[in-house]
Amino acid sequence: MTDSPDAEALHPLDAALDLLERAPGRFAGRTTPEYWNMAGPFGGVTAGLMLKAILAHPEQRGRPVALTVNFCGAVAEGPFEITVDLVRDGKSTQHWSAIMSQEGRGIATSATAVTGVERETWGHHPARRPEIPAAEALPAFVPEGRNSWLHRYEMRYATPEPRPREPGELRGGLSQFWVRDLPARPLDYPALAAISDSFVIRILQVRGDIPPVATSTLTTYFLADPAALERQGDKLILGVADTRAFRHGFHDQSAELWGDDGELLAVSHQVVWFKG
Amino acid sequence: MTDSPDAEALHPLDAALDLLERAPGRFAGRTTPEYWNMAGPFGGVTAGLMLKAILAHPEQRGRPVALTVNFCGAVAEGPFEITVDLVRDGKSTQHWSAIMSQEGRGIATSATAVTGVERETWGHHPARRPEIPAAEALPAFVPEGRNSWLHRYEMRYATPEPRPREPGELRGGLSQFWVRDLPARPLDYPALAAISDSFVIRILQVRGDIPPVATSTLTTYFLADPAALERQGDKLILGVADTRAFRHGFHDQSAELWGDDGELLAVSHQVVWFKG
Repeated sequence: MTDSPDAEALHPLDAALDLLERAPGRFAGRTTPEYWNMAGPFGGVTAGLMLKAILAHPEQRGRPVALTVNFCGAVAEGPFEITVDLVRDGKSTQHWSAIMSQEGRGIATSATAVTGVERETWGHHPARRPEIPAAEALPAFVPEGRNSWLHRYEMRYATPEPRPREPGELRGGLSQFWVRDLPARPLDYPALAAISDSFVIRILQVRGDIPPVATSTLTTYFLADPAALERQGDKLILGVADTRAFRHGFHDQSAELWGDDGELLAVSHQVVWFKG
Repeated sequence: MTDSPDAEALHPLDAALDLLERAPGRFAGRTTPEYWNMAGPFGGVTAGLMLKAILAHPEQRGRPVALTVNFCGAVAEGPFEITVDLVRDGKSTQHWSAIMSQEGRGIATSATAVTGVERETWGHHPARRPEIPAAEALPAFVPEGRNSWLHRYEMRYATPEPRPREPGELRGGLSQFWVRDLPARPLDYPALAAISDSFVIRILQVRGDIPPVATSTLTTYFLADPAALERQGDKLILGVADTRAFRHGFHDQSAELWGDDGELLAVSHQVVWFKG
């Protein structure tokens, strides 16, 4: 963690992702109030932290290809530790596991990741970015309530804004919006991992209320290479999320994150636990 | 492993999934030639094995919600061991990790899983099963080549069959087909995990050739409860798979597995490494 006088000038995301290396593959961090969610830190920041720790392992080569983050238990306010293990070191891919734990509370988060050495191969892009109105034509979402992380993103919805409403007809689960860090910040992989969890809960979208809810597991595939991240810079990302089924206390969500130039930066899938 | 005289009467999937408990959470198994793929066992069977071992842990409660399997290195012909750890035991979910290793070869496969106690909640099913011709109207796929696992599934394609073809125009990545174990076998979670990887490689579908290719990581979400599996029994499942982008040596795939009665049994996502 950065204790220098410049610490206050850090972007809030960089402050939340700040890790102190205690030993190779062993990192210390601390939750920050700027990304607080209902009952713990915003899961996207936890995902970004797990990825940042893996990328900071001294044996890591290449860039992230896939990240699965399992939210095992609530992360309490305060310090945490992340330990990273290289499970298998291959020629073209490396497989990783990581654990976030808090003293006296056990394991809060587990993760696995695949990183890959950059290679030039055949490329083909059958998926197309959806057409939505330009960001300038859409109002910035003004969040209500105490979840501070919502204030850390600029969101401009092309679909109905995620706001509680009177019980009534169910709506579709699709959200399409422009999104980026607020203040704007050049995109990197941990930030992209965080944005992949920035879709406000689908039950609110569909049913209009906010029951007790928590992501159980989140998997993100990174299709963007470092050059694509650099092209994207701090420009708005087009996010698309939808859900297929709510049943037996769980529902799925699949999301796409599209770059400003129409390139698919990442896809992300999650299972969400809900009550009621 | 079953050494009884009845062993030969086992369904080939049950033979492939046969595990001997050596200690709580520690299991021994062996690859079988019936599910061989290009350079190792069919990944779906490996996924089924990881899940079966987790479900056999003495502290496991409930049913699978999510499974991520990381294919870290090739599994060699012969014996393997799977060790399972309960990472966190919560009231409504349990978080698991598992490792498959082979003596002298290290870790071949890692996995994480979420299991959940069955609960009745609000249910809603916005996704719809696609309409494809009835199974009887579609020819059974007759696989060519040496990959024995392809002979362990009945597959009836509504979209073009996955066969090598002359270089030419690229096709779409969508596959829709009816699929079940061959011989037919009542569906359980390990079998469903295996079927979630039964979509023949997307590059063959799109480009028409089979380059060196391997799944890096596979995540499956189980939406079916045990009653839904029982209703499904040994009937054909409607499988749908598509891909969004091939780039820098990796591509994604998302798949849905629909039950005979139109219920979504599972969704599955993977990242595939390819060469060339």
